[in-house]
Amino acid sequence: MDVTTNQISVEKTKNTKINDVDFDNLSFGSIYMDHMLVCDYKNGAWEAPKVVPYQPISLDPSAKIFHYGQSIFEGMKAYKDDSDTIWMFRPLDNHKRLNLSAKRLAIPEIPENYFMEGLKALLKTDSDWIPQSAGSSLYIRPFIFATGLGFHASPADEYKFVICGAPSGSYFSGEVKVLIEEKYSRSANGGVGFAKAGGNYAGQFYPTKLAQDKGYQQVIWTDDNTHEYIEEAGAMNVFVRINDTLLTCPTSDRILDGITRKSILKIAEDQGIKTEVRKIKVQELVDAAKDGSLKEMFGAGTAAVISPIAGFGFRDTDYMLPTVEDSYATLLKERITSIQYNKAEDKFGWRFKVE
Amino acid sequence: MDVTTNQISVEKTKNTKINDVDFDNLSFGSIYMDHMLVCDYKNGAWEAPKVVPYQPISLDPSAKIFHYGQSIFEGMKAYKDDSDTIWMFRPLDNHKRLNLSAKRLAIPEIPENYFMEGLKALLKTDSDWIPQSAGSSLYIRPFIFATGLGFHASPADEYKFVICGAPSGSYFSGEVKVLIEEKYSRSANGGVGFAKAGGNYAGQFYPTKLAQDKGYQQVIWTDDNTHEYIEEAGAMNVFVRINDTLLTCPTSDRILDGITRKSILKIAEDQGIKTEVRKIKVQELVDAAKDGSLKEMFGAGTAAVISPIAGFGFRDTDYMLPTVEDSYATLLKERITSIQYNKAEDKFGWRFKVE
Repeated sequence: MDVTTNQISVEKTKNTKINDVDFDNLSFGSIYMDHMLVCDYKNGAWEAPKVVPYQPISLDPSAKIFHYGQSIFEGMKAYKDDSDTIWMFRPLDNHKRLNLSAKRLAIPEIPENYFMEGLKALLKTDSDWIPQSAGSSLYIRPFIFATGLGFHASPADEYKFVICGAPSGSYFSGEVKVLIEEKYSRSANGGVGFAKAGGNYAGQFYPTKLAQDKGYQQVIWTDDNTHEYIEEAGAMNVFVRINDTLLTCPTSDRILDGITRKSILKIAEDQGIKTEVRKIKVQELVDAAKDGSLKEMFGAGTAAVISPIAGFGFRDTDYMLPTVEDSYATLLKERITSIQYNKAEDKFGWRFKVE
Repeated sequence: MDVTTNQISVEKTKNTKINDVDFDNLSFGSIYMDHMLVCDYKNGAWEAPKVVPYQPISLDPSAKIFHYGQSIFEGMKAYKDDSDTIWMFRPLDNHKRLNLSAKRLAIPEIPENYFMEGLKALLKTDSDWIPQSAGSSLYIRPFIFATGLGFHASPADEYKFVICGAPSGSYFSGEVKVLIEEKYSRSANGGVGFAKAGGNYAGQFYPTKLAQDKGYQQVIWTDDNTHEYIEEAGAMNVFVRINDTLLTCPTSDRILDGITRKSILKIAEDQGIKTEVRKIKVQELVDAAKDGSLKEMFGAGTAAVISPIAGFGFRDTDYMLPTVEDSYATLLKERITSIQYNKAEDKFGWRFKVE
């Protein structure tokens, strides 16, 4: 069954919280807009999505989300330009990836039409919540989790799909120094690392805390077998600039196919920057840091867009990166955000007008 | 702060559901007793545990359980003997393992006293729910999950610890044929496979479904690097009998340190059965199946105790196991359940009287 945006029922809140929000001083993902989209999966089908006031979710203690980790999510953003038009960035790619995650976690896939029309209905209802100030945006969190009951370790028979939005400022504040992790791992061959599964994140918190205790902000994950190759930076894809070449690891079943990652590769090529998608050895980074050819490193993801890395720690030695004048991170972030905020030509057709 | 069982507040339900339960025909983990234990972590400390009527849990949509998979659990059982005494099996080991899981998932550890006294208070309140019929028991599910809020990918600041109980019959019904999995994996080196983390289970559902579509009931997981060694059977530890030797894989950061597993090893040794804890190659199983020296395979875990495996599939060939007269699975299950149900001497000091 297809729905149109206008067919989605909207129950408006009687108590808006918007007047309590200081839109000039937004943190990341900690204030939620007045409404949310909800859509339940029951009796083998997704029911009609609806917009309702942001409200608590009530679950039986035997709901499988509590026991067996069946939960997936996406991260997206909405931007409002100077003429109050709302834009998103490649939202169909988020929908496709949500369904890839769903399949791997044995969660029923959500129809594109429900996802897109639900998203649009929600954004129209809460359009006043989309910040217009520079560097801010509406961070959007679609997620699906198991509401079906039972202690049997098997997929649930009921699920809930929800979209919430949080007007947000920048994800990181201050310098980011990373630690190359050789003991703990993020994902297995044949595992769920490519999916945005909740469990992938919980497993990162303890090793990240250990790194933070040593003075680093994030971890660079390496392959779980040899720990010789870098894979991701915290919850982001990782890019490395050696001399004038921009490198990133190929995606795999261990590495997330980031939308920011692939957009950066495209923009870099368009910009005439030489790119290489290949496995990157930790030793190559160390050697390049030592001989001065390692110019930049940065993380890439929806939340932080591009997060420059100031230096990395490896086996008790810190390798700090130089300050470069022609920073790729700065250039690429400027180009991608200009497209996102409708301030530059959208030559790749990535912008999506919410109307 | 320590509590005693009597200091734990008990709010009794006014509407017992016990008269609706057919204790002679129990399925596994699908009916829940009248009360549950709840204990909240706030402001850096666990609050006093309390027994309350079994009831829905209400959570903000930004609660981290929905997004980042911070959830862990345990599986335990309570048994009632002919004189109405309630027994548990090595419950302190479950508490220790829950805290090992907690540490790895960056969840605050629960004090032993809160866990044990809370458990006892709950079981005393709902003692009528513990089945007395042969083969049945009360399956107990302690779990902890993140209730703290926010879309920032970092550990929550609030958690909820809950214990529920479900009078249960056997976990598996019918013959169990397993498929040796060579593509998908359960866990990574340096990952969370040794923990009872929710996400470890969600990742198994899709590969298990693929195996079920081929006519198998469960998957035998192999190491994610070479897929040459067997690791676990579904959500259980795996045992193999070759000639008269009982083999199981060593625990590691990828393999759960099962309480049933280690109890079986102890009983087998006591029984004069030769045991070996070492890596087991898939090829060794295939060779042993071919030459007739592979006598038995079984899974071991709290829910199913010992689950005999009828045969395994590997690369499009099925290897069915013989029916042996002196089955280790039968002998060991008889011995371990006799201890659990207080029908035999407890020479290892594993039984725990709930009083």
